[in-house]
Amino acid sequence: MILTVTLNPALDRTYTVDALVPNDSHRVRSVVERAGGKGVNVASVLHDVGIPCVALVLAGGETGNVITADLEARGIAYDMVLGAGESRRTVNVVSKDTGDATIFNEPGPSASAAEVAAVVARVQEHVLAGATVVAVCGSLPHGVTSDTYALVVLAARAAGAQTIVDAEGSALREACAAGAEVAMPNRAELRLSTGTDEERAGVKALQTLGARNVLVSAGPEGMRAMLGDGRILVARPGQRLRGNPTGAGDAATAAVASGLMTKRDWPDLLRDAVAWSGAAVLQPVAGAVHWGDIVRLREGTTVTES
Amino acid sequence: MILTVTLNPALDRTYTVDALVPNDSHRVRSVVERAGGKGVNVASVLHDVGIPCVALVLAGGETGNVITADLEARGIAYDMVLGAGESRRTVNVVSKDTGDATIFNEPGPSASAAEVAAVVARVQEHVLAGATVVAVCGSLPHGVTSDTYALVVLAARAAGAQTIVDAEGSALREACAAGAEVAMPNRAELRLSTGTDEERAGVKALQTLGARNVLVSAGPEGMRAMLGDGRILVARPGQRLRGNPTGAGDAATAAVASGLMTKRDWPDLLRDAVAWSGAAVLQPVAGAVHWGDIVRLREGTTVTES
Repeated sequence: MILTVTLNPALDRTYTVDALVPNDSHRVRSVVERAGGKGVNVASVLHDVGIPCVALVLAGGETGNVITADLEARGIAYDMVLGAGESRRTVNVVSKDTGDATIFNEPGPSASAAEVAAVVARVQEHVLAGATVVAVCGSLPHGVTSDTYALVVLAARAAGAQTIVDAEGSALREACAAGAEVAMPNRAELRLSTGTDEERAGVKALQTLGARNVLVSAGPEGMRAMLGDGRILVARPGQRLRGNPTGAGDAATAAVASGLMTKRDWPDLLRDAVAWSGAAVLQPVAGAVHWGDIVRLREGTTVTES
Repeated sequence: MILTVTLNPALDRTYTVDALVPNDSHRVRSVVERAGGKGVNVASVLHDVGIPCVALVLAGGETGNVITADLEARGIAYDMVLGAGESRRTVNVVSKDTGDATIFNEPGPSASAAEVAAVVARVQEHVLAGATVVAVCGSLPHGVTSDTYALVVLAARAAGAQTIVDAEGSALREACAAGAEVAMPNRAELRLSTGTDEERAGVKALQTLGARNVLVSAGPEGMRAMLGDGRILVARPGQRLRGNPTGAGDAATAAVASGLMTKRDWPDLLRDAVAWSGAAVLQPVAGAVHWGDIVRLREGTTVTES
């Protein structure tokens, strides 16, 4: 069982327009609304491929109700800690002609220390009830301390689970210091979090803090993994894909969570991460993959030791 | 008393971003949510300047509840016909650096003939209860016939009110044929509705159909009025204003409604229309004006007979 933790989930609304023209008025041709936020997308991808997962969310207000109603309707197992703040929305504007996606992320509500404590307690309960991998993903709500993800990692580890962290800045650094099994920044997040442009130095910094394995996504070019055993593995997709990159990183996180849970070896796990990520690009919304795409994309993906 | 009629109201969400970059991800710096749609904005402007008005809306679903809750909270008198469909949303992205506004209008739900009939009956009740001016504004919902605004105009006239129509296409033409006192297209709407690029010919077409007075907005350049008595008046603002043009036309409609109700003469009424419109540009959201701005802008506005 995998547990994803999302402290700042969102109600994602995807607008299709003919073409995005700044400073103009647009007719929205179609509207699709789904629950989102990184951890929710990870759970949604795992649900799509049939891997048992629970999405733990801190959500509130009418928007929180719509988020959980959508998870319910889609059959995604979830657990909600009720927050006092109204959950946020995001708007994703997709141009029909180019497929380009322009995203607007609302900041979301503030959370309290008591709400964080409730989430941490719930994480521990889920691990004791059988979750072996815990993935904490996405932005921290306003008002919480930067060690919030570290607290989640510590609680999950203490109860016996492995942890994956997809975050940035001090939230990422402190989660690494708490002993995260896998840190998954993309290149920009790594730079922002470590203050260095040199990828290897940035990764080394996170590992020195305490992260065991660091997987750095390079978007369409694949992924580089610096492992705790000293190996450096590079996974490259077989082809460039056109599509919607929103949620590609979340699909990679889902693959890594699945790989940790089933104890796959690293080359296999990284091949999956790149293939699942590509499969997400082929879907019009975040948090979705087709198994057939994953199987096909795995074939072309190469993993080499560097 | 003025009645505004909005068959396709919206919940407007204004996002402030640093700068709008197509195909990029944006942090939304601030979120403001208000009830909107053209007729709602007209009522909101009238409320801001203290003129009695009721906003009649056809609204439904959770979004409909949020729309009426917002009207309630702002003290805007309203009457709601409950629609079966979920009301729409709009997103307005304002760039902090330039003030540019990029708008995304959801299409909104379909309405039924029974819902339209209920609205028409309610219009008549409000006129019999004292509304002397009825303004029908904005896009028609899907699923209704193009004579819907004409039915509203006929009902309002039969009960003794004057009518203003801000619409386009066949909805505008048929409302003119029903004897609207004032048609208020902007230049693009006039072109679209009459098929001619020549403004005077377009206006003549609407008057031949049955509109008594046609006021054509030229945005920042002011407004041209072709009156039923044969006069042509041109109103020009004293200055170019920087700001948010969303809702400027609705403020002009509010001024015209106010002028009809209080039987102002046309030059005075047009000066108000241009001044109120300018005052709306100075506000960050649609449906708002400050009285002080109106007073100041009236000073610089000129009205000449051409």
